Amino acid sequence: MTVEQARALLLRCAQPADAVEVELVDAFGRRLAASVQTEEPIPHFRRSGMDGYAVRTSDLANVNAAAPVELEVIEHIPCGVEPQYMITVGKAARIMTGAMVPEGADAVIMQEMTELVESEGRSIVRIQKKVASGTNITPIGEEAREGTLVLEAGERIGAGHTAILASLGYSRVPVYRKPKVAILSTGSELLQLSDPMQMGKIRNSNAYMLSAQIIAAGGQPQLIGQIPDDYPRAEQMLYDLLSSDADLIVTTGGVSVGDYDIMADFFLRWEGTTLFNKIAMRPGSPTTAGSWRNKLLFGLSGNPSACFVGFELFVRPVIQQLQGAVVDHAQTVTCHLAVDYKKVNAYPRYVRGYWYSNGGEHYAKPVGRDKSSAILSLKEANCLIVIPPTKTGFPAGDIVQIIPLDGAMSK
Amino acid sequence: MTVEQARALLLRCAQPADAVEVELVDAFGRRLAASVQTEEPIPHFRRSGMDGYAVRTSDLANVNAAAPVELEVIEHIPCGVEPQYMITVGKAARIMTGAMVPEGADAVIMQEMTELVESEGRSIVRIQKKVASGTNITPIGEEAREGTLVLEAGERIGAGHTAILASLGYSRVPVYRKPKVAILSTGSELLQLSDPMQMGKIRNSNAYMLSAQIIAAGGQPQLIGQIPDDYPRAEQMLYDLLSSDADLIVTTGGVSVGDYDIMADFFLRWEGTTLFNKIAMRPGSPTTAGSWRNKLLFGLSGNPSACFVGFELFVRPVIQQLQGAVVDHAQTVTCHLAVDYKKVNAYPRYVRGYWYSNGGEHYAKPVGRDKSSAILSLKEANCLIVIPPTKTGFPAGDIVQIIPLDGAMSK
Repeated sequence: MTVEQARALLLRCAQPADAVEVELVDAFGRRLAASVQTEEPIPHFRRSGMDGYAVRTSDLANVNAAAPVELEVIEHIPCGVEPQYMITVGKAARIMTGAMVPEGADAVIMQEMTELVESEGRSIVRIQKKVASGTNITPIGEEAREGTLVLEAGERIGAGHTAILASLGYSRVPVYRKPKVAILSTGSELLQLSDPMQMGKIRNSNAYMLSAQIIAAGGQPQLIGQIPDDYPRAEQMLYDLLSSDADLIVTTGGVSVGDYDIMADFFLRWEGTTLFNKIAMRPGSPTTAGSWRNKLLFGLSGNPSACFVGFELFVRPVIQQLQGAVVDHAQTVTCHLAVDYKKVNAYPRYVRGYWYSNGGEHYAKPVGRDKSSAILSLKEANCLIVIPPTKTGFPAGDIVQIIPLDGAMSK
Repeated sequence: MTVEQARALLLRCAQPADAVEVELVDAFGRRLAASVQTEEPIPHFRRSGMDGYAVRTSDLANVNAAAPVELEVIEHIPCGVEPQYMITVGKAARIMTGAMVPEGADAVIMQEMTELVESEGRSIVRIQKKVASGTNITPIGEEAREGTLVLEAGERIGAGHTAILASLGYSRVPVYRKPKVAILSTGSELLQLSDPMQMGKIRNSNAYMLSAQIIAAGGQPQLIGQIPDDYPRAEQMLYDLLSSDADLIVTTGGVSVGDYDIMADFFLRWEGTTLFNKIAMRPGSPTTAGSWRNKLLFGLSGNPSACFVGFELFVRPVIQQLQGAVVDHAQTVTCHLAVDYKKVNAYPRYVRGYWYSNGGEHYAKPVGRDKSSAILSLKEANCLIVIPPTKTGFPAGDIVQIIPLDGAMSK
């Protein structure tokens, strides 16, 4: 089964979680559970784009440096105040940037192009230059008319979305609940973090790595712990979790078909539907997934890099879709190979890479040793480079697809 | 003052906040407050890269398909278990991926290249092919020697960092405290989110937008509210905040030199040091900042886009440095202009843009109307395009610098 087929199968099983309402200040990074329309045009009044004077351009029809026009300033209009007077022939109003343009006026002339004169207790503005009708006035609805769809359900709420929601009066926002993702580890070689190191053993890093990946994808990780080596107890634990309020269950390790691979055994015997247990890809070919009563169970590899890649390719899109995201592609970007890729691949390979730009061109190069057991190079990677099957490798400069990782291109 | 000069001035004033310790599961996205070294080599034992048999390659020196060698399997070595026996002449051990290679063995031969025979109660593995010494064994320290610096203070903790920290036994992690950033708004035109709309007024969107930008930069926003229009009360409020536990104070609005610009007045009269009150840039030229007893106060523009740009260029790097980040450049990326840029700029312009790749090339194009009052286009933007001063504009295809925004290139 190809990566694309496996992902399509999974996404057919993932239904968005229910919606909850949160304060706008807590909505950053969440996904909208409803679309948002404008109730009023934006702007909803004629807005001045400058500090200056609201004028009738017909009053300035014959103005020039030799023949300036003088208009009486009848009002000062700060932001947030509705003008009291209409501008009639020979009149003007002082106006601030963002303030409401009074009726009768059809342009705002920049303060710097005017001269203010006090004469017999009256304020007079002297103007020596014409302006076109409409100058420095943002018309009603220029940005959006009433009833415009401005945000769609499933969009991730960034700073710009937050500004829009605030300006439309959303102090609370409907968002999808964060999917709860249970994390289980297998492997008698795993030490807890606080255990002293022992010969032949390693500390459980995959569970914590997955917890970070789950947070980055918008989920809520639940570190459950270790699956017992004893099959009946392991089975009981898995069914208990499948029946729990977790939206997804992710296990790491025990999926290859070897002597001690308890997840491979479980997927052979369970009551759920195994969607796939082998993917045409490296690393992570034994990545397994299945569905039990509409709940997805993932068996990711125990090798750190294979586990990482399996999550990014299969679990991340599911978590996104559970939050209403429209996931219809692998979210790839194209760029150029920075170095020759010389390996022979019978299957597509997802290589940890570093993506950068130089002189307008974008490049990606593999980082660290491309071993699925390698752990240090995981932190250098800001993308996965997708290397198609090849008998010859690819020369530097060839176009490749990459999958950007969390925080790519920013530090 | 140029953007670069202003940023350099600010970064000289920003000292990292103190360190706190958090659980590893809560460390994602925080910045390390100490560097991390390996205490043991990685791996700390000779690790098998395959399911197979640990052998002495000298035993296979003359092997071929016609003359296979048979070795006695003296032990099964699962992951996490220290081997009991040394491999001597004529012996082998069954071994799992990730398990510890026993003494005496110098290669692991893949299971698929062998045949297991049970004979007179003994397990015999039959091998028909040579392997080179070292095959499928990861030597001690291959990834890192003991005492290797693997993570540096100030690095943002991503999923890869989390895996490394876990594997080194960090159940708790020293990180920099999240800087507290107080947000204040000015402007009598501002309605609260729950207020009904009124003619001439707008809702306070900048404060919420800034709160999202602060979270994205790693800070902790504090929405303080509105600065009073009354100068003595405004001044009191600002000094109270400057004396509070906020690490930074950001205000929006009131910085141009107009009739009602209270922040401009404050920066003229205050006891602090004004670092700059005019920047050679658009939008956001009136962006102001100063320092009072080592605390920075920012006066950002009240225009949504100018406020957004002012934050990204000046406040974000300060928040990052307060968390120990090494900020020594504008974190720009280069790509190609997708369309002609026809405007004349006397000053560098930071244009909201959309950045994308197509056929290996990366492009950026302006989004929405390039008006600093525009709000809807803020959500389309995934970068700021840096347009240098120009009398002629720039043709499509020219190389430009862009500043990626939070979530750029991922949805």
